[in-house]
Amino acid sequence: MSKKEYVSYGSCAVGVPGSKEGIAGIRFNLAPMSDDFVDIILSSLENVDTSMVWSETDPTSTVYRGRESAVFDSVRAVFSQAYHDDVHMSIHMTISKGCPGDHDADYTLDYDDKRINNRNSREISFPVVGKFSLYPMGSDNYMSLIEEVVNNGIDRGVFAGSGHYTTYLQGDVHDVFDYLEYVAERAGKDVSHYIIEASLLCNLPEGESL
Amino acid sequence: MSKKEYVSYGSCAVGVPGSKEGIAGIRFNLAPMSDDFVDIILSSLENVDTSMVWSETDPTSTVYRGRESAVFDSVRAVFSQAYHDDVHMSIHMTISKGCPGDHDADYTLDYDDKRINNRNSREISFPVVGKFSLYPMGSDNYMSLIEEVVNNGIDRGVFAGSGHYTTYLQGDVHDVFDYLEYVAERAGKDVSHYIIEASLLCNLPEGESL
Repeated sequence: MSKKEYVSYGSCAVGVPGSKEGIAGIRFNLAPMSDDFVDIILSSLENVDTSMVWSETDPTSTVYRGRESAVFDSVRAVFSQAYHDDVHMSIHMTISKGCPGDHDADYTLDYDDKRINNRNSREISFPVVGKFSLYPMGSDNYMSLIEEVVNNGIDRGVFAGSGHYTTYLQGDVHDVFDYLEYVAERAGKDVSHYIIEASLLCNLPEGESL
Repeated sequence: MSKKEYVSYGSCAVGVPGSKEGIAGIRFNLAPMSDDFVDIILSSLENVDTSMVWSETDPTSTVYRGRESAVFDSVRAVFSQAYHDDVHMSIHMTISKGCPGDHDADYTLDYDDKRINNRNSREISFPVVGKFSLYPMGSDNYMSLIEEVVNNGIDRGVFAGSGHYTTYLQGDVHDVFDYLEYVAERAGKDVSHYIIEASLLCNLPEGESL
């Protein structure tokens, strides 16, 4: 009988990011609620210029890793490119930086910080509703950081209320992505490891109003 | 000009759950990738007996709150009832207990712990693939808890590998739900506030194998 291969995170120290290069990452699922879901997903992934990020797609999701601005640029492009006037679609994103279990592998870091998809993405504009939760790890003061970023969303006009376990978002897709990128940058200043879990939806049968 | 209504979490203390009744909750999105998504979502929500949980559906998601076993019983029933042989579908779940910002409202607690949907759910069996991440909050020792629950998944045979930001799952839908319920129970013994983010998928075009 072969020995089971257990995982071990024993060498991970909280407060010490496993990546010394400051690699950020986004893992996301796109779910177009249409019989044409395969074409919509694959063509949107192919239409995005991912030369500024490391990327990998498996049956559950796609992950982009690299500079924080580059991974946001790429995922914004995927969601924009996948938009079709008549298709209800959701995207769920896990945005993460600083995990003690991470390591300096599987990334591209472009120090010129080119947002290479930005112009194409911003030509496609549509309203979204959504929700997000911020998880600052290894910190005893996490509720005050959450309060600060939620109140910034109120100032920007993308906050659409609080619910159990989540904060609702509403607005133009680019205003919402700009906000989520701000949340990531702000969290990274306070804690060495944060995760943002966010869902965005478009073309809801009942309209994009919460 | 009216004054902006900011949120305030100032009275929340880390390590002190906002609910004194031990309320657990699950917020989930069901995404059937089919032109019939409205019927599939609404009929599965209606077919579940939610008398043991508090529930609310908004345009982004549905939330169940109550005893941990009851919310798991309910969401397992929703996903099982929504299953159709030929429809690719994903569910994303935020499973949470002990948030300092929570409060004793919006819940049902049935102290007889009736899993009222269990028999009907288990009549519907199908393979799934998926992924999950556990976030133990306000703790400096969170990586060791994550290691323990991942290794339990290896023992159960539902572990399908580790990826950036996530642990992959694979198996019969009920084995995977049983495991996620174990993760919640185990995490609740170690930390006062945990979140599990999990996605399950069925009927993948490329098959349920990772």
